[in-house]
Amino acid sequence: MGAITLNPIGILHCGLKSRDATPRNYDVSQHRGTIEIYPQFRAALQGICKGDTIVVLFWLDRADRTVLQVHPRGDTSRPKRGVFSTRSPVRPNPIAVSELLVEKIEDTVLSVKGVDILDNTPVIDIKSSIVSGRRKQQPG
Amino acid sequence: MGAITLNPIGILHCGLKSRDATPRNYDVSQHRGTIEIYPQFRAALQGICKGDTIVVLFWLDRADRTVLQVHPRGDTSRPKRGVFSTRSPVRPNPIAVSELLVEKIEDTVLSVKGVDILDNTPVIDIKSSIVSGRRKQQPG
Repeated sequence: MGAITLNPIGILHCGLKSRDATPRNYDVSQHRGTIEIYPQFRAALQGICKGDTIVVLFWLDRADRTVLQVHPRGDTSRPKRGVFSTRSPVRPNPIAVSELLVEKIEDTVLSVKGVDILDNTPVIDIKSSIVSGRRKQQPG
Repeated sequence: MGAITLNPIGILHCGLKSRDATPRNYDVSQHRGTIEIYPQFRAALQGICKGDTIVVLFWLDRADRTVLQVHPRGDTSRPKRGVFSTRSPVRPNPIAVSELLVEKIEDTVLSVKGVDILDNTPVIDIKSSIVSGRRKQQPG
C-alpha cells in the first residue's frame, strides 16, 4: 500500500507553547484547552456529552519523523530505545493519543482537561473511550 | 494546515476476513495475529518485550470516510450518533487504536493477542501503553 492522506478535522488551542512546559502524558496533566472542530464535521460530534472521556488523536506537526531511537524522556543517562517502545512524540508517523475529559461543549468547540499537546496542533480524530466514564488520572 | 501524508510501518496478518467476524473492540477479543514491521523500522522496535501491552494504530483502508453519523454497532433500532462519539471504523480519518498483548517477537514480527482488526490492514504506529502491564480485558 502506498502513501495515506489525512485531512485535519480541527485544531487544539491551549497554553502549552513549548515541549519543556508540556506534561509528558495526559494522565499527569491538569491543563485545559479547547478543541475547535471544523464546521463541516459538526454532525460527527453529536452524542459527545459534558463529563465524557474522549480519545483524541493529534498530528504532531513539529515532531522529527526521521529518528527511530531516543533516550526515554530525553534522559541521556538512560540507554536509547526504539520509539515504538515509548510514547515519545518522535516517530515515523507522529500521531499522539490522549484521553481528555470534556468539560463543556459549545457548538463545534469542546473544552477539555488533561491536555499534554502543544498549542495549535492539528486534530485528526475523536472516538469514545473504551474505559467510558473512568478517567485514568493521578490523584490531586 | 493542508493534507498530511503517512506511510505504513507494517501490516497485520490475522484470521479476520470480514467485519461480521471481527470483535467490536480489542478488550473483548481473544484473536491472535502477527504484525509484520517493515525492515527499515527494525531499530524502532528495540525495547518491546514479550508480555508488554502495546498501543497499535491501524489505517482502516476499507472504511467509508464520507459518513459522519452511524447507528451504534449497526443496530438500526438505535438512533444515529456522530462518529466521533463512537468507535465505529467509519470516520473521516479511519484510524483504529488497539491495545494488544505481545506474546512473541521474532526479528520484525510481533505475535499479538486481542486483535479486532481485519486481515491485511496497514499499521501506522506502535507506542507503549500508559497502563503498562495492566491488560484491560474481559474475564474468561
